Amino acid sequence: MSFMFSKRILAAGAAALVLFAAAPALRSDSSNFPVDYRQWIHVKSVIIGPSSPFFAAQGGIHHVYANPAAFQGLRNGDYSDGSVLVFELLTLNEKDGASSEGARRRVDVMIKDSRANPATGGWRFDRFMGDDRSHSTLTDQERADCFTCHSNAKDRGSVFSRFRN
Amino acid sequence: MSFMFSKRILAAGAAALVLFAAAPALRSDSSNFPVDYRQWIHVKSVIIGPSSPFFAAQGGIHHVYANPAAFQGLRNGDYSDGSVLVFELLTLNEKDGASSEGARRRVDVMIKDSRANPATGGWRFDRFMGDDRSHSTLTDQERADCFTCHSNAKDRGSVFSRFRN
Repeated sequence: MSFMFSKRILAAGAAALVLFAAAPALRSDSSNFPVDYRQWIHVKSVIIGPSSPFFAAQGGIHHVYANPAAFQGLRNGDYSDGSVLVFELLTLNEKDGASSEGARRRVDVMIKDSRANPATGGWRFDRFMGDDRSHSTLTDQERADCFTCHSNAKDRGSVFSRFRN
Repeated sequence: MSFMFSKRILAAGAAALVLFAAAPALRSDSSNFPVDYRQWIHVKSVIIGPSSPFFAAQGGIHHVYANPAAFQGLRNGDYSDGSVLVFELLTLNEKDGASSEGARRRVDVMIKDSRANPATGGWRFDRFMGDDRSHSTLTDQERADCFTCHSNAKDRGSVFSRFRN
């Protein structure tokens, strides 16, 4: 009986370990959504106004965030595996001439994983619409298009943004 | 001789300790400018446009940053000593409908130090114009005015900003 009890405890312990070990992996592997990006380093911001040709697709304010590994890359152009950059696009709500941040339009994510993405300089591209955190909407063709455009910045690790001091 | 040599080493060691201990204090006490705030958590952003009554004084984009202690305060309303919040105001440069971040207009700083600032809820207020990092321009009267206004948020530790998720 005590043996069975021990086995039970062991089984419970093993299950807890599996849960503990799986949680972080599931969080990033199932959707690639970087849940804590709002606590990362704020790289820069840009406002796309109504007179911009990009207003329909990207109107509002966007912020770029970098995790610590990507912040190193922004400084030396070398992005180690695990680097993640986020482009967050929000609507703007204007009142009396002041515009505050409103609803999230989308979150674009670049994750560096050299082994998994050899054809795209190590980068994987994802896009999450609105407040969705589970479903990247990009097709393989769109991901390839992301990389083709980002290759214009290949001398800086395929990253357009520069850290605004 | 070896005794004198030891004394020398001890003296050098003591001097190094004093320098080491004094360096962080000097950095903040001489100017209170938080040199690394651009690597802190980005709390929120607001754009003050030309039609705002605050445009002359505060036109452009402002970002609020919080150090880790202040980030805790933003979540629970309790700001421990060492909490620092920064309000950074930048000009905006518009081109083809897109506005990018330009010159820094000023940096306002709130530092929590309960012992040093018993009359203002523990907060000290400073203002650095442009890219200056050495001279807070606020008079004692202006600091008192800062606190009077911030007291409108006293149920939230005298901090107006809320973390934008």
